[in-house]
Amino acid sequence: MSQISRGLENVFIKTTSLTYIDGENGILRYGGYDIEDLVEHTSFEEVVHLMLYGDLPTKLQLQRLKSALDEAYEVPQQVIDMIYSLPRDSDAVGMMETAFSALSSIYGMPWNKATNRDNAVKLVARASTVVANVLRAKEGKKPAIPEPSESFAKSFLKASFSRTPTEEEVKAMDAALILYADHEVPASTTAALVTSSTLSDIYSCVVAALAALKGPLHGGAAEEAFKQFVEIGEPDMTESWFKRKIIEGKSRLMGFGHRVYKTYDPRAKIFKKYAKVISERNSDARKYFEIAQKLEELGVETFGAKHIYPNTDFYSGVVFYALGFPVYMFTSLFALSRTLGWTAHVIEYVEDQHRLIRPRALYVGPLKRDVVPIELRG
Amino acid sequence: MSQISRGLENVFIKTTSLTYIDGENGILRYGGYDIEDLVEHTSFEEVVHLMLYGDLPTKLQLQRLKSALDEAYEVPQQVIDMIYSLPRDSDAVGMMETAFSALSSIYGMPWNKATNRDNAVKLVARASTVVANVLRAKEGKKPAIPEPSESFAKSFLKASFSRTPTEEEVKAMDAALILYADHEVPASTTAALVTSSTLSDIYSCVVAALAALKGPLHGGAAEEAFKQFVEIGEPDMTESWFKRKIIEGKSRLMGFGHRVYKTYDPRAKIFKKYAKVISERNSDARKYFEIAQKLEELGVETFGAKHIYPNTDFYSGVVFYALGFPVYMFTSLFALSRTLGWTAHVIEYVEDQHRLIRPRALYVGPLKRDVVPIELRG
Ligand SMILES: CC(C)(COP(=O)(O)OP(=O)(O)OC[C@H]1O[C@@H](n2cnc3c(N)ncnc32)[C@H](O)[C@@H]1OP(=O)(O)O)[C@@H](O)C(=O)NCCC(=O)NCCS
Ligand SMILES: CC(C)(COP(=O)(O)OP(=O)(O)OC[C@H]1O[C@@H](n2cnc3c(N)ncnc32)[C@H](O)[C@@H]1OP(=O)(O)O)[C@@H](O)C(=O)NCCC(=O)NCCS
Repeated sequence: MSQISRGLENVFIKTTSLTYIDGENGILRYGGYDIEDLVEHTSFEEVVHLMLYGDLPTKLQLQRLKSALDEAYEVPQQVIDMIYSLPRDSDAVGMMETAFSALSSIYGMPWNKATNRDNAVKLVARASTVVANVLRAKEGKKPAIPEPSESFAKSFLKASFSRTPTEEEVKAMDAALILYADHEVPASTTAALVTSSTLSDIYSCVVAALAALKGPLHGGAAEEAFKQFVEIGEPDMTESWFKRKIIEGKSRLMGFGHRVYKTYDPRAKIFKKYAKVISERNSDARKYFEIAQKLEELGVETFGAKHIYPNTDFYSGVVFYALGFPVYMFTSLFALSRTLGWTAHVIEYVEDQHRLIRPRALYVGPLKRDVVPIELRG
Repeated sequence: MSQISRGLENVFIKTTSLTYIDGENGILRYGGYDIEDLVEHTSFEEVVHLMLYGDLPTKLQLQRLKSALDEAYEVPQQVIDMIYSLPRDSDAVGMMETAFSALSSIYGMPWNKATNRDNAVKLVARASTVVANVLRAKEGKKPAIPEPSESFAKSFLKASFSRTPTEEEVKAMDAALILYADHEVPASTTAALVTSSTLSDIYSCVVAALAALKGPLHGGAAEEAFKQFVEIGEPDMTESWFKRKIIEGKSRLMGFGHRVYKTYDPRAKIFKKYAKVISERNSDARKYFEIAQKLEELGVETFGAKHIYPNTDFYSGVVFYALGFPVYMFTSLFALSRTLGWTAHVIEYVEDQHRLIRPRALYVGPLKRDVVPIELRG
């Protein structure tokens, strides 16, 4: 069916000033800044400013943004109660969906150029509260609200674990937040855009994005990739596992491959660097890092010729694991960061390019037929 | 930007054997059967069979399908509790999102050709339970589970209102269920497809669809259309309202216009017929029906030349209102019925045409720039 745009490959759904990807050369930029540069020289809060207001902030702007985030961590008690009322074995992203549905009832409002960006800032702060409490609820702990601190990453880690994180941990979390903040229009962002196109509110856009992110071919891949390392168990077992599972079993290597990148995902390299550093003091994490490295080599050897390379989800799990997060939280951590990209894209879409997203399907079913009433249908 | 497919107009995202629309001639068919024919000669359960199993059922098949629906009305108590724990003034569709997120944690499972369709049947039954209880929770009533009866429509109405509906009411509800069951790939179905493309589970697909449906340009339109009638208040006021609000105020006439239909939406005509009959014994509903008729005339006079005609949401609200539903439930009633189309489309997509949906955005932002560290940024 040549008329079908399979997977919407190469269909341009919007313009954007947010993110530039050069898939051939493995380049990723937010607002013109190389991702490497942003991770090295800025913080997640600065990236929030860049994505929502178009530029890296001045010192004063950054201060204002931090205050806005700090003030928005508090969410209505009913939302916290709801998270803790869910069964502890609920899917973490599902719990986020529930919380964001509730937030949509509470904070959802018509789109408005004068307030959209400030609302998005608050939404990002609230996402931090939601994710920290999804973790705490699942771990059987009491609620905790992120508290103002030097940084968004630090406040989040502290609320998650009830302890002050090390500087190294804060830096690794901050890097992960920047790395996952946006990636143009993957499936989750597309679901958010479709939702915004009906003029549904910004929290509902996040709900739709979460539902899409969850799948193993998208955000779920970080968990799936890491589960491979756990299944392999020991670095020495990597090769036999790879042969059995991937080559002979014809399974997809999770954390590899990308619709847009035809070479190394630049984010994978940066995550690898942080994974190496942060796993140094945790023997388990160290082991998984070694397995991942071996698996990477085998994967590139086998699939490199088909332009299938590690993507961002390959090493991120090692970072999250070394930070102390259970595997079931990885997709939610991705989501926390990506709330920025989702909201920035839907704002761009609604403000300047809005139109109902309504594709077509090509009918290939039965030709016209007449209903035979049920009595005569046998 | 000629490269941009604005609103994905005329982009074909998939093939389908479910629904055929001829927008020029106002024809809508499910599986080859004209919508008029289906409403007149079949029941919603038969349409469930048609959409999921490809054909109208034999008597035996219909019996089996009814049993499957009857057995699936019961949902885990925790889902019911969750609905009732939400604040009563929560958005009804938001409450559905919460319930479906929870159902996704409980019933979500990998896609499997052998079970997908039976799972969709159960999902449709559970949607009935969810919607009836969203209504009951918002009205301050006690939970009630739909019970087996002659028909899906009757079981739903009985659970909603705790009284036995008249035959006329059952027929009107059944007609509404058939009319809203599918419409090819509008925004909500597109959100569901994007979600399924990451191999997220079928309940998550419904969550995404709900988030998109909610918007006033899509499923929210039935509520918006009806609110116009309420605002107008009296048939005599229709013309002055239309002049002030629509002509001079340049507002969109809600319940009018469609991306695909360039003439009367065939569903609008059928809804109008049922609205007339069912509103006969309810003086308020009758009044709104008269206002709607006047507004229709004015709308067609003004916008007909631009190919803007009544769509399915124009008269549906009068039917729902006459059945006793509060306006805030209209979108959820649409959703109840459309769970069928959403699930049928995602099953088609995942089983036979699956590919990750990943469009592109055209970058138009700042060219490459270097990060100036915050200390030097002023
Ligand atoms: C992300 C992904 C869905 C993008 O793929 P896509 O553009 O839709 O490409 P397709 O699914 O059409 O795959 C193209 C070919 O590459 C192969 N391929 C893609 N990813 C692969 C992987 N991770 N392992 C092995 N083979 C892979 C496919 O089998 C297919 O091979 P074929 O042409 O011989 O049939 C895909 O690479 C994948 O499933 N990766 C694993 C999950 C993952 O890590 N997701 C996170 C992405 S950030
Ligand atoms: C459904 C809808 C979004 C589809 O429209 P679309 O294909 O995206 O068309 P556009 O929004 O590009 O509109 C095309 C033109 O028709 C006009 N138009 C569309 N619907 C209109 C309406 N209901 N009332 C007045 N004008 C309308 C637009 O203003 C635009 O006019 P212009 O070209 O002079 O600027 C649109 O008709 C609408 O907003 N309708 C009201 C909401 C509604 O009833 N939705 C339920 C649909 S089932």
